[in-house]
Amino acid sequence: MSDSVRLVEVGPRDGLQNESKSIPAAVKIELIERLVACGLCSVEATSFVSPKWVPQLADAADVFAGIRKQVGVRYPVLVPNLQGLERALAVGVEEVAIFAAASEAFSQRNINASIAESLQRFEPIMHRARVAGVAVRGYVSTVLGCPYQGEVALNDVVRVAKYLYQAGCYEISLGDTIGVGTPRRARTMLNAVASEIPMTALAVHFHDTWGQAIANIHACLEAGVRVVDSAVAGLGGCPYAAGASGNVASEDVVYLLDGLGMSHGIDASALARTGEWISTQLGRASSSKAGRALLARQSPAVD
Amino acid sequence: MSDSVRLVEVGPRDGLQNESKSIPAAVKIELIERLVACGLCSVEATSFVSPKWVPQLADAADVFAGIRKQVGVRYPVLVPNLQGLERALAVGVEEVAIFAAASEAFSQRNINASIAESLQRFEPIMHRARVAGVAVRGYVSTVLGCPYQGEVALNDVVRVAKYLYQAGCYEISLGDTIGVGTPRRARTMLNAVASEIPMTALAVHFHDTWGQAIANIHACLEAGVRVVDSAVAGLGGCPYAAGASGNVASEDVVYLLDGLGMSHGIDASALARTGEWISTQLGRASSSKAGRALLARQSPAVD
Repeated sequence: MSDSVRLVEVGPRDGLQNESKSIPAAVKIELIERLVACGLCSVEATSFVSPKWVPQLADAADVFAGIRKQVGVRYPVLVPNLQGLERALAVGVEEVAIFAAASEAFSQRNINASIAESLQRFEPIMHRARVAGVAVRGYVSTVLGCPYQGEVALNDVVRVAKYLYQAGCYEISLGDTIGVGTPRRARTMLNAVASEIPMTALAVHFHDTWGQAIANIHACLEAGVRVVDSAVAGLGGCPYAAGASGNVASEDVVYLLDGLGMSHGIDASALARTGEWISTQLGRASSSKAGRALLARQSPAVD
Repeated sequence: MSDSVRLVEVGPRDGLQNESKSIPAAVKIELIERLVACGLCSVEATSFVSPKWVPQLADAADVFAGIRKQVGVRYPVLVPNLQGLERALAVGVEEVAIFAAASEAFSQRNINASIAESLQRFEPIMHRARVAGVAVRGYVSTVLGCPYQGEVALNDVVRVAKYLYQAGCYEISLGDTIGVGTPRRARTMLNAVASEIPMTALAVHFHDTWGQAIANIHACLEAGVRVVDSAVAGLGGCPYAAGASGNVASEDVVYLLDGLGMSHGIDASALARTGEWISTQLGRASSSKAGRALLARQSPAVD
């Protein structure tokens, strides 16, 4: 099994979409460029959702167009529907992400559609993306619990993930949207999905709401996953999920990987400085413990 | 292997000793009594260090004497030397804890003595405790890294732990004082010590400085440890270690154990409320993510 892990940085999208205060497009662009300069080779740039839903992302086209793209780096964008995809294609995106819930209640509350309806809606999107030669990543949300229905059946997670994979998604990201998972359940869920989809086509996406994200990631790495979603400074959350706090911090994941002797190609110090920078832009402290610890260690020692 | 885990709550001692603002003895006593009411059966009450070193703990005797003791609950206190032990015995303690570093540099900076000297100093303490019929718990600090010398040799950890065990400590708590450990290294360290001391006589003590504590605890639980030190609300740190942040939060450990299906006998809701209460007393937010998430879930839902 490879010891190389790919981080998918979701801070600029999953992180910033939840901010109530408007963030200038220039700051979003600088964040993305800084993250790429840290060595991240997958940075989710923005989301082409309707500005009515998420005003923070009304500048999606400007942000994407404004990025000085680097060769070999992926800049996926979220698209909720065909209109979003068309807007994304118009500015030249090469990769998009689509999302479905494993929880019926969450699907209804989040997009006002049943899971079955949401999956049907992907067909024209997948077709259009294929014609356009655009790669599609699939998110499955609420894989370890739902804020509305509580438990989510393992079968539902496997079924939705398998549907997205068979529909043509090159990678399926399994999201613990409300961060309720613990390591044993996370590993059981991952292994269940991996019995139907190759482990190499799976990613894990943990929120740290209950403080378990790093433990869950470690358990999933031990089970063989090699793609991990994270957000610099632990930005973000889910605007539709009550009580959902931030994503796992990229800095903390990098520290974990270093400790496990797994390669990732990311400059931990530059990443910590980027987390500090965006946190300052947002007027708050970074949620990354490893980021703060690293910067504290690098500043003049005070015993 | 048993699925029952014992938490040793160190908040009232390892947590509060680091506070710069004076905390009334009545608050410390109330914290201890609340923790016991949550179901914790080992609560480290205070430390009989010299008030010159840690003024916050000058009220050790008052605090210990003031606790309405419950049958079946242990209230260990830290004693750095024979004078401390005598002060502790004078108020009727039934269990004490002693501490040694696995790092030579840390031992010198922390207690101005080599490891060898620190171990020699335990002899009269162990003898006096045995005569008094008092149980002794041993802490080994800096087991995964030292703020002054960096790496700590595994052999040194094993040697110090083995010395304390052979000297009569009934349990050895292995402390990642500066929270630099990651799961693989934590497990390797635990297994190395367990090759010389029964696993049933070992405890793990993690700080969450780099965000890895829950992952480390999970890895050590998988390796067989069944005693975990933690502090409500993630209180504390180490006053002598640069950059050391708080202990792992008891609430987060309890949530992990629940997810693993391991029993612990603790009322998670009462514990979260206790964490909120002491954080309010200290004028800050709780550092426990699980505690905050639990209380948010129990308050009226806001979508």
